[in-house]
Amino acid sequence: MNLILLEPTEVPVSGPVELSGRRAEHIIKVLGCKPKDQVRVGVVDGARGHGTVLDLSSGRVTLDLVLDSPAPPAPPVDLILALPRPIMLRRILSTVAAMGVGRVFLVNARRVEKSFFAATIVAKREFRSHLLLGLEQAMDTRLPLVSVHDRFRPFVEDELPPLLHHYDARLFANPGPEDTFRLLWDQGGARTRIVVAIGPEGGWIDYERDRFLELGFVTASCGPRVLKVDTAVAALLSRAWLLISP
Amino acid sequence: MNLILLEPTEVPVSGPVELSGRRAEHIIKVLGCKPKDQVRVGVVDGARGHGTVLDLSSGRVTLDLVLDSPAPPAPPVDLILALPRPIMLRRILSTVAAMGVGRVFLVNARRVEKSFFAATIVAKREFRSHLLLGLEQAMDTRLPLVSVHDRFRPFVEDELPPLLHHYDARLFANPGPEDTFRLLWDQGGARTRIVVAIGPEGGWIDYERDRFLELGFVTASCGPRVLKVDTAVAALLSRAWLLISP
Repeated sequence: MNLILLEPTEVPVSGPVELSGRRAEHIIKVLGCKPKDQVRVGVVDGARGHGTVLDLSSGRVTLDLVLDSPAPPAPPVDLILALPRPIMLRRILSTVAAMGVGRVFLVNARRVEKSFFAATIVAKREFRSHLLLGLEQAMDTRLPLVSVHDRFRPFVEDELPPLLHHYDARLFANPGPEDTFRLLWDQGGARTRIVVAIGPEGGWIDYERDRFLELGFVTASCGPRVLKVDTAVAALLSRAWLLISP
Repeated sequence: MNLILLEPTEVPVSGPVELSGRRAEHIIKVLGCKPKDQVRVGVVDGARGHGTVLDLSSGRVTLDLVLDSPAPPAPPVDLILALPRPIMLRRILSTVAAMGVGRVFLVNARRVEKSFFAATIVAKREFRSHLLLGLEQAMDTRLPLVSVHDRFRPFVEDELPPLLHHYDARLFANPGPEDTFRLLWDQGGARTRIVVAIGPEGGWIDYERDRFLELGFVTASCGPRVLKVDTAVAALLSRAWLLISP
């Protein structure tokens, strides 16, 4: 927890904020703060700054807030991800929030198990706590938007096409030669936004691949090695960020 | 398990091989093989090929082996990693074996907890099973060499310098601007080997950083965001591989 994140509703119009629970415990036990110490603070989808410890008591911390840095820009990388199994989804949500993504489209695919959509985390859209862990790690405040698309065809035919003009790089992940990244790099990278589509364990089927290629996606890879989805997500987002012009 | 890995001692001079346990279970239950079906097979640090199922019985599979592809080359990327906590080390070992590394140097650093070296996985060098999981995933047979260096100074002063001529890119990971990767890329990447040094949670201290810089390491980053060590490993190895000339 490199940043203490507050919900917008927790930020008082004026005066100090009082924290309890996980964040207070972190300030007291991990950071070992004393009165007058400062901690980095941010507001979800809002500004960053610092909090000065006014008071610590059993499990409670009172902070005086100075939120003097504007909200960072939303990351210029989006992710289309075939819905992974719940235990992996939790970890991936934290990872992508830490690495920085604007939107995550969780989509169906032939090789996605139907039961994954029935899992509590998906059915009840319990994404927020996992995303916050990633933001706290990376000291960002921009919560990725996560949407669930339980039918592949309406997603690629109706929902995705109107968004495509946002992206000047559309990458379709598949193990194989790594020429795409080199080519995009030599062409100057991406100037607007990048979207990366990553398939399920076992990969996209040909029909799914063809739909992405029709929409102007180009096959991109991290080499011929077959990676677990969570590793592939980190590896591909890392390369996507490299393509964003500084 | 995209590749059934055999230990060299398991491979008969002639005749079929009989498997039990985890691998037999995978062939029977996950792959659902029947007699005459083929599975991808490899020998640790050796050749790859396929096995034809001759017989399946309760928990046992007999395979006829054809090992007709030579061992893949050892990956041209090595990793210096400040020893992470055991639960993270396990995951990282699988990840790095899947992504491809030749050597892993697990080193001490000021912000590494002493207790990590006393953990069973480190004290007893129980790395192999975690590495094999990664190789099975990536369909590689080259087991990364893992060594443990519990004193930082002898490592950077005595052990590392004689190896440095192997590397024409020496990267020292630190959050910050991403210019190094862009620069190395524009200079044509690496022609021999790359070594990447990744610090502990909390980062290297200045003394440690300075030792690496003195040895010709250049600071490289995946951007300003502070990542967990396992995410940083995947993100940086992904970029390192991109620098290897095809």
